[in-house]
Amino acid sequence: MSHDNIEFVLVEPSHPGNVGAAARAIGTMGFKNLVLVKPTKHPHPESRARSSGALDILLDARVCDTLEEAIADSSLVIGTTARQRRISVPIDSIHECTQSIFESSLKQKVSIIFGPETSGLSNNDIDRCNRLVYIPTGEIHSSLNLSMAVQVIAYQLNLAFFGLEEGQETRDLASGKEMELFYEHLEDVLLETGFLNPTNPKQLMRRLKALFNRAQLDDNEVNIMRGILTSYQKPRVK
Amino acid sequence: MSHDNIEFVLVEPSHPGNVGAAARAIGTMGFKNLVLVKPTKHPHPESRARSSGALDILLDARVCDTLEEAIADSSLVIGTTARQRRISVPIDSIHECTQSIFESSLKQKVSIIFGPETSGLSNNDIDRCNRLVYIPTGEIHSSLNLSMAVQVIAYQLNLAFFGLEEGQETRDLASGKEMELFYEHLEDVLLETGFLNPTNPKQLMRRLKALFNRAQLDDNEVNIMRGILTSYQKPRVK
Repeated sequence: MSHDNIEFVLVEPSHPGNVGAAARAIGTMGFKNLVLVKPTKHPHPESRARSSGALDILLDARVCDTLEEAIADSSLVIGTTARQRRISVPIDSIHECTQSIFESSLKQKVSIIFGPETSGLSNNDIDRCNRLVYIPTGEIHSSLNLSMAVQVIAYQLNLAFFGLEEGQETRDLASGKEMELFYEHLEDVLLETGFLNPTNPKQLMRRLKALFNRAQLDDNEVNIMRGILTSYQKPRVK
Repeated sequence: MSHDNIEFVLVEPSHPGNVGAAARAIGTMGFKNLVLVKPTKHPHPESRARSSGALDILLDARVCDTLEEAIADSSLVIGTTARQRRISVPIDSIHECTQSIFESSLKQKVSIIFGPETSGLSNNDIDRCNRLVYIPTGEIHSSLNLSMAVQVIAYQLNLAFFGLEEGQETRDLASGKEMELFYEHLEDVLLETGFLNPTNPKQLMRRLKALFNRAQLDDNEVNIMRGILTSYQKPRVK
């Protein structure tokens, strides 16, 4: 189960209230692994109170002395950061990289790392990340509370995983090769019907490709579309 | 600006910490309108502290005695609730109804209503909603803290609005009527080519409609597709 391979790692969280709220936040989205690196106060009555129904997640939290120890078993380490950061690691908004997180989490551990409340992740911490993500915000107030950031990322991952798991079961997306053969077939037929201008077929083809790429055809749908093209090419029955 | 037409309405919130955290949460996502219906403690030092950088939103919050007063100017009232509720009002997950919220908010006020921490919205409150939404959760821990629910919904709306605003500028989606005419045209041509079985054309047509609905065609693309169909119907050039 992909949810169980995701670890939420809080680096040096200073407010026990945030630790408890983070435990509850990941619990509400079906996750269960909380890791604390050098928490300032832990265990603490305030974190227990704020964890609400998810006390089990708080009590099961793994406590580490260093970030290295926390991520030792992870094949993918994702750092969370504000958007502005100018560094060489690629940075994407969280909803853009749910698919690659999902794919990694099917087989291996993935760590999502959150920095301390006031300073965020240090440059040293960031150097240990394979990838950085940010949460898109408004322009005036852009600083999310730590546990809120955990909640948003857990929500976005859960939502995407749900869709991807469903897709996994029911739709086998067509391969790039299959799509290429379909587009060639389409172009041939549209040249035959006279729809495409033989001296400049590319522009309309580009628009048609954009349309079909957006629809993300599965194998079956490519077969249907090619069946339609073939039915045109057969001798016309009058 | 659509963000400014959204109001986040908290009905009888009992914890001032949640009120402050909700102010910050909506602020981080570019929203600014907070409405409080009979808050138990307001104003309060704890709400000020938790509002962090978004104190302006907290101080500008409109305070009302009744929900009626709070939603008097709204053309669309969305209630937030747990998924299980069995009532006649339609209930969707929040990410499924961002588009209709966005469209309403372009011209009119939209209220998103959150019930008290322990009990949620009463049946009376729900009767005043045009629509109900829920946040998809895990199965074991499914109860989000009030301010966390505000954060997730504000995040999801901001994300969707951003995409829809971009789309607004560049793509004018085809109307239902245009799509219907396209599907009729498609069916006619596929009957002519012999691709569809005249005694049972519906099943394949349903699959083709699902494909094109997923792609969300704009006006221009519908014209291209109909141009293709017309090019088939012309006498064949040998």
